[in-house]
Amino acid sequence: MADLLTTADDQMLSSRFRATRRLTERLASPLSAEDQTVQSMPDVSPTKWHRAHTSWFFETFLLVPSLPRYEVFHPEFGFLFNSYYEGVGARYPRVDRGLVSRPGIVEIADYRRHVDSAMEEFLARGPEPYDASLVELGIQHEQQHQELLLMDIKHVLSRNPMLPAYAPAAAAPSGRQGTVSWTDHEGGTHGIGHHGDGFGFDNEFPRHTVYLEPFALADRPVTCGEWLAFMDDDGYGRAELWLSDGWATVAAEGWQAPLYWTDGEDGWHEFTLAGDGPVDPTLPVSHVSYYEADAYARWAGARLPTEAEWEVATTTRAETTGVGGNLLDTDALHPTPVTGGDSPPFGDVWQWTSSAYSPYPGFSPAAGAVGEYNGKFMVNQYVLRGGSCLTPPDHIRATYRNFFPPSARWAVAGLRLARNA
Amino acid sequence: MADLLTTADDQMLSSRFRATRRLTERLASPLSAEDQTVQSMPDVSPTKWHRAHTSWFFETFLLVPSLPRYEVFHPEFGFLFNSYYEGVGARYPRVDRGLVSRPGIVEIADYRRHVDSAMEEFLARGPEPYDASLVELGIQHEQQHQELLLMDIKHVLSRNPMLPAYAPAAAAPSGRQGTVSWTDHEGGTHGIGHHGDGFGFDNEFPRHTVYLEPFALADRPVTCGEWLAFMDDDGYGRAELWLSDGWATVAAEGWQAPLYWTDGEDGWHEFTLAGDGPVDPTLPVSHVSYYEADAYARWAGARLPTEAEWEVATTTRAETTGVGGNLLDTDALHPTPVTGGDSPPFGDVWQWTSSAYSPYPGFSPAAGAVGEYNGKFMVNQYVLRGGSCLTPPDHIRATYRNFFPPSARWAVAGLRLARNA
Amino acid sequence: MADLLTTADDQMLSSRFRATRRLTERLASPLSAEDQTVQSMPDVSPTKWHRAHTSWFFETFLLVPSLPRYEVFHPEFGFLFNSYYEGVGARYPRVDRGLVSRPGIVEIADYRRHVDSAMEEFLARGPEPYDASLVELGIQHEQQHQELLLMDIKHVLSRNPMLPAYAPAAAAPSGRQGTVSWTDHEGGTHGIGHHGDGFGFDNEFPRHTVYLEPFALADRPVTCGEWLAFMDDDGYGRAELWLSDGWATVAAEGWQAPLYWTDGEDGWHEFTLAGDGPVDPTLPVSHVSYYEADAYARWAGARLPTEAEWEVATTTRAETTGVGGNLLDTDALHPTPVTGGDSPPFGDVWQWTSSAYSPYPGFSPAAGAVGEYNGKFMVNQYVLRGGSCLTPPDHIRATYRNFFPPSARWAVAGLRLARNA
Amino acid sequence: MADLLTTADDQMLSSRFRATRRLTERLASPLSAEDQTVQSMPDVSPTKWHRAHTSWFFETFLLVPSLPRYEVFHPEFGFLFNSYYEGVGARYPRVDRGLVSRPGIVEIADYRRHVDSAMEEFLARGPEPYDASLVELGIQHEQQHQELLLMDIKHVLSRNPMLPAYAPAAAAPSGRQGTVSWTDHEGGTHGIGHHGDGFGFDNEFPRHTVYLEPFALADRPVTCGEWLAFMDDDGYGRAELWLSDGWATVAAEGWQAPLYWTDGEDGWHEFTLAGDGPVDPTLPVSHVSYYEADAYARWAGARLPTEAEWEVATTTRAETTGVGGNLLDTDALHPTPVTGGDSPPFGDVWQWTSSAYSPYPGFSPAAGAVGEYNGKFMVNQYVLRGGSCLTPPDHIRATYRNFFPPSARWAVAGLRLARNA
Repeated sequence: MADLLTTADDQMLSSRFRATRRLTERLASPLSAEDQTVQSMPDVSPTKWHRAHTSWFFETFLLVPSLPRYEVFHPEFGFLFNSYYEGVGARYPRVDRGLVSRPGIVEIADYRRHVDSAMEEFLARGPEPYDASLVELGIQHEQQHQELLLMDIKHVLSRNPMLPAYAPAAAAPSGRQGTVSWTDHEGGTHGIGHHGDGFGFDNEFPRHTVYLEPFALADRPVTCGEWLAFMDDDGYGRAELWLSDGWATVAAEGWQAPLYWTDGEDGWHEFTLAGDGPVDPTLPVSHVSYYEADAYARWAGARLPTEAEWEVATTTRAETTGVGGNLLDTDALHPTPVTGGDSPPFGDVWQWTSSAYSPYPGFSPAAGAVGEYNGKFMVNQYVLRGGSCLTPPDHIRATYRNFFPPSARWAVAGLRLARNA
Repeated sequence: MADLLTTADDQMLSSRFRATRRLTERLASPLSAEDQTVQSMPDVSPTKWHRAHTSWFFETFLLVPSLPRYEVFHPEFGFLFNSYYEGVGARYPRVDRGLVSRPGIVEIADYRRHVDSAMEEFLARGPEPYDASLVELGIQHEQQHQELLLMDIKHVLSRNPMLPAYAPAAAAPSGRQGTVSWTDHEGGTHGIGHHGDGFGFDNEFPRHTVYLEPFALADRPVTCGEWLAFMDDDGYGRAELWLSDGWATVAAEGWQAPLYWTDGEDGWHEFTLAGDGPVDPTLPVSHVSYYEADAYARWAGARLPTEAEWEVATTTRAETTGVGGNLLDTDALHPTPVTGGDSPPFGDVWQWTSSAYSPYPGFSPAAGAVGEYNGKFMVNQYVLRGGSCLTPPDHIRATYRNFFPPSARWAVAGLRLARNA
Repeated sequence: MADLLTTADDQMLSSRFRATRRLTERLASPLSAEDQTVQSMPDVSPTKWHRAHTSWFFETFLLVPSLPRYEVFHPEFGFLFNSYYEGVGARYPRVDRGLVSRPGIVEIADYRRHVDSAMEEFLARGPEPYDASLVELGIQHEQQHQELLLMDIKHVLSRNPMLPAYAPAAAAPSGRQGTVSWTDHEGGTHGIGHHGDGFGFDNEFPRHTVYLEPFALADRPVTCGEWLAFMDDDGYGRAELWLSDGWATVAAEGWQAPLYWTDGEDGWHEFTLAGDGPVDPTLPVSHVSYYEADAYARWAGARLPTEAEWEVATTTRAETTGVGGNLLDTDALHPTPVTGGDSPPFGDVWQWTSSAYSPYPGFSPAAGAVGEYNGKFMVNQYVLRGGSCLTPPDHIRATYRNFFPPSARWAVAGLRLARNA
Repeated sequence: MADLLTTADDQMLSSRFRATRRLTERLASPLSAEDQTVQSMPDVSPTKWHRAHTSWFFETFLLVPSLPRYEVFHPEFGFLFNSYYEGVGARYPRVDRGLVSRPGIVEIADYRRHVDSAMEEFLARGPEPYDASLVELGIQHEQQHQELLLMDIKHVLSRNPMLPAYAPAAAAPSGRQGTVSWTDHEGGTHGIGHHGDGFGFDNEFPRHTVYLEPFALADRPVTCGEWLAFMDDDGYGRAELWLSDGWATVAAEGWQAPLYWTDGEDGWHEFTLAGDGPVDPTLPVSHVSYYEADAYARWAGARLPTEAEWEVATTTRAETTGVGGNLLDTDALHPTPVTGGDSPPFGDVWQWTSSAYSPYPGFSPAAGAVGEYNGKFMVNQYVLRGGSCLTPPDHIRATYRNFFPPSARWAVAGLRLARNA
């Protein structure tokens, strides 16, 4: 899929629109009608729902208000494929998305073509700046759902006792774990948040000043091998390492390892989008919750970075080396081995920070229904930074704020340690 | 599908086997891959599961033990498609049947052909009487799943806000409700239970003597029009009409009408396998629970019959007029209007009795794993009699005992009133 | 307490009323204000609630309608102490009875005296026959709550990790278990149900004819020693012994032994109203559910009797030897050892039957709100017969029908085996 | 109780210990044995549990390790009255605290005397500085439970349909609501956190620098009258005002007003520790969750302050006017009317801030089991500042960080608005 993904800077909006829409279809293409129908837990959405919902976004926020004589594809789809926008009317319950067999994948493909065709007409007219920003938002929105589509189908397939693969594994490069090096960063006042050039979500604004104590950040993420050492040291069995809510969750859920790990006769296995296989100790650990990341850091005598620390540390580096790393365009679909020396700050695994997801000082959500995009979720979640192997490369940046509840494990999330300098 | 369904008496076992297998496929044929994947509540199984499970039954109880060199189609299918037989090993959790996207419908069709082909070989050898009885059990088992398949997909489609149809409605005959007539029956000792000629499930045995007081049975089931009168008289709001558990269920579930009824601007609607439409007052009411049937009977100054009363009353009639009525071979897939005069005791709607589902005196389950077929369910359920519009006609008889928990509503179940003579 | 309990035949109604009221207070007297306040599960009611509710019964059904100028003790008590009578207005939720600290035990003692004083005035007037029957019902009702009070406080105290005693243990007689003998009983038609002499609950009527196959009944209940053999033979681990719902309950609740049994270093212990102690193998087993009783019987190659079998077998014997056995008047408060030879059919432990709790043919509940006493519970329950060590001796008889859901274990319930003759 | 509560500065530790212990008993004294036994929800503990647990704290962390030959009062109390300290062994489940009737209040009074007597001996020896700091911690701990005891019994009594009072209401002063004035505060770097003089909890350390944008803070809390305007404007019915989790909670819990408010025929009523009465519009609103406080602020075109803003704004003022306001020593036990002009920053109602409860930069918990005091709760909670009418006056300060989950409503919590300057 690398051909579909290039940097956005010099691309026309319409060609980026087309590329994004094509990539979604390509990501869905290995999946059968049955695969695309299942919802394996309330957080997961069926593949065909993602395909329809991303189309509904363009239809609802652009075509209906701004393209004269546009006809909605189906009168019920506004109800079926609204995710959470209270401002645009009632919606089908999220937990029941797996109960809706119709429209099936053929009709949803028709829906996508119907929307695409109208969007071409819309884009050909040269949209006003505000509408163009909504097109950009729709593209970015669909990119988020590309990662969700892959996260979600991984969970779906993992519930099948036959552990089927989404796609064959790419050839695995060799890795070596080595020891961690720490990079020191100065304290004092720093600026964080989006500078204003290029696209940013509202939650990245406004850029503002923070005051930091001096700190150090590890040069690479925690690996599966280190996680196995944590497990061998009874990490999941020692209350003193855990936040109280985390400890209760460990007990309630019976956690003994990251999600998708199973204890086989020949050691720990991990389910991936390529099916079942042995845990590779040189890979960054993934599919751990905030609770687990926090407990691991305590066990390791370190801590998680704040999101400000992460951004300050990463911006400098990103300016030097650019956004690189194992993102969706590598086709790996899984973290790749730590190779020693500095790891890129982007890709492989989202990195939990110790920052609760809160509005930046002076934050104000966008006007209208798209104002519901981010702000209303700023409670009971923690910020993750850096993108993962499932993130489109033109979707990530140093100021990007992802967020999940502290118990969530189905994201490709790991951690990078910090400590006081 | 009428061509597939004839009386069994003069049919060869193998031809009945083939006809039954073909009918299952025909019943599934209007359904897409997506339709066949969904499980809309724990009681419901996906269509493709029914198709696989009925094949697993023949594979497990006949081919593996009795056909030399038979190779199982897939080593995991024994785990995936075992319904509840503890005696043959572990099984996939019932509540999660809708999470399994693979095998899909194409592979399940292959599975069915694989089993059918081996069964042909098995049947061609002329099976021993015990094995032949297992073939017969497998046929009867698959017939039960034919009714379940239709009950279940009706529930699945009902959860879709677009209320799609399984099949177009047949032309509706006209009905007239008329008043109820009562037929008196003598008290004293009677015999009930299976005579021993032809197939019967173990729960119909042994035939035994019961003592009844004189009673009278209504000549037709309760209609939707009568149910509307019950609703208009605040039937769902008057505690004194209800069993205590029923009253608690009404409150917890918010019941105000039978399942699949919705209150439209133009009156009550009912969802059927042909989609949404107005309630027809001349039809037998269906999709009511035992609690509702019992409350209605109390409101009507009557009661439900015991299963012994129902069988005594019906046997005489069945001997005169045979098993007739609106069964699966009519293709109606929905109850048809009451036409005045005696209604056939079979078909249209299963009839709740006031009898808890218990073993007959001297009951003993069959040996081996098939002994789990009926006996272990003899608690917390009530007996229903007579078959419904979804029951294959060569599957029903006067001694047949169906059973559901008292809160279940997704069977095509109604009621016929009784009273003391 | 033996002095308070004598046969009712030659007693004046008023003296029986007084004796019953006094016994309730005596049963509560070992309990502190704190003890009397706790509700340890939804099925359990606080002691002080039992004391108030039994007073409310007389106040509501007798004093308010029939004693001129009677003033209710407190206007809110009708709401607080109504148990389940929909016909007399709203009520406080059952599951929250343990949240009500006031009225406390001092005020409830005042309430009881207020009601008693008014009842003395009422009784001194010589009530009409209908009112006298309500007084009798109130006495019988309070006797039922005497057993419930003891069952409930046993459960409350069992939840305290210090396992406190309600009362010291009586001296334990010696027992010997011996083998079981079986008494044969003839088949054919028999009459069961209340003859009409003396008090009976509506659910014991009408007397009617049943047809039975020949059967045999064990001469004593199953003992703890036999139950230990069942446990040693993996009785709680073998699916084939259990009803499907029972097996699911075993898994969900983690049952491995009767309620109140714990596995100590020196073998199995049992919590009783006298505190914790070793299981005595010569005692009848108690605190088992219907599911467990049924599984045990299957393991033992026998079955539970129907309630008709139990009554037919017991009536003959009761006519010979009278109602005897270890009932509440022995002060034992726990089953006593089986002594060999025929055990009395009454006392020690309630005996589960295989009969679902259903109305007798021709049953009609009493008129008015007291008609809610029994009939509305005739679903999802099984009949128990014979009374227990917590049952007042003038409260039990051969036709008495007690009932609990099949999963209930906090009653002093065991079993007596039956088999086909 | 004012005589018991004076500033700590010039008090001997032992006299503060005695005063604190006496105040707890005085707060419990209006409550019956029954009142002290009830747990009305999992967050609530019975009064007698608070009395025992605060004694257990001194016994476990001081007397057992540091007083030679000290004998624990009862070997099971360590299990029963451990709240959440994993480091000192197993504990009785929190949700079941209301199931334990014994020890009763008499035995718990003995327990308190036993501990007090040993503490007198311990204090008379002149404890080492570390032990003295643990005594201080024990005093502060018991003060926290004094507020909890009152919060909890208020919830217990509120569940009683008779709405009994804990204590009669004090004479209510008159109030006037007036308009809000705003005080501006400069941006830039500020220091927050405990200076190190006097007692502070570990979560107040280390003092550190924060960078703030200019902001303004309201001069008084939001009143009930303003809250009624929010309700009249459909505040509980407009999704756009709410965080997503808050909106889901409103729906799930059916919130329509603050906790303890009920809609009477003559307008809104509020349950207080003095019983039921009409809502006074001039009082600060209390018993609102973070979700409600946040939604109100959005409706009012303002926002909640961060905890740093609150502390910066309050420290200046506290240095001028001292900690004053309606705290526990006023005996009001309820917020008192806003009087116009600046309200004291302390007392009346805890004030929700927009800050998730997180460790300060460089935070490290205390060594040993008391290290579990605060740190492990730093997730899924929000910080509240300022104390309430139930807070002992020598327990509150400008750096004090209280915390509750965003859905909690049983604390006396309201809000003070902030906005960008």
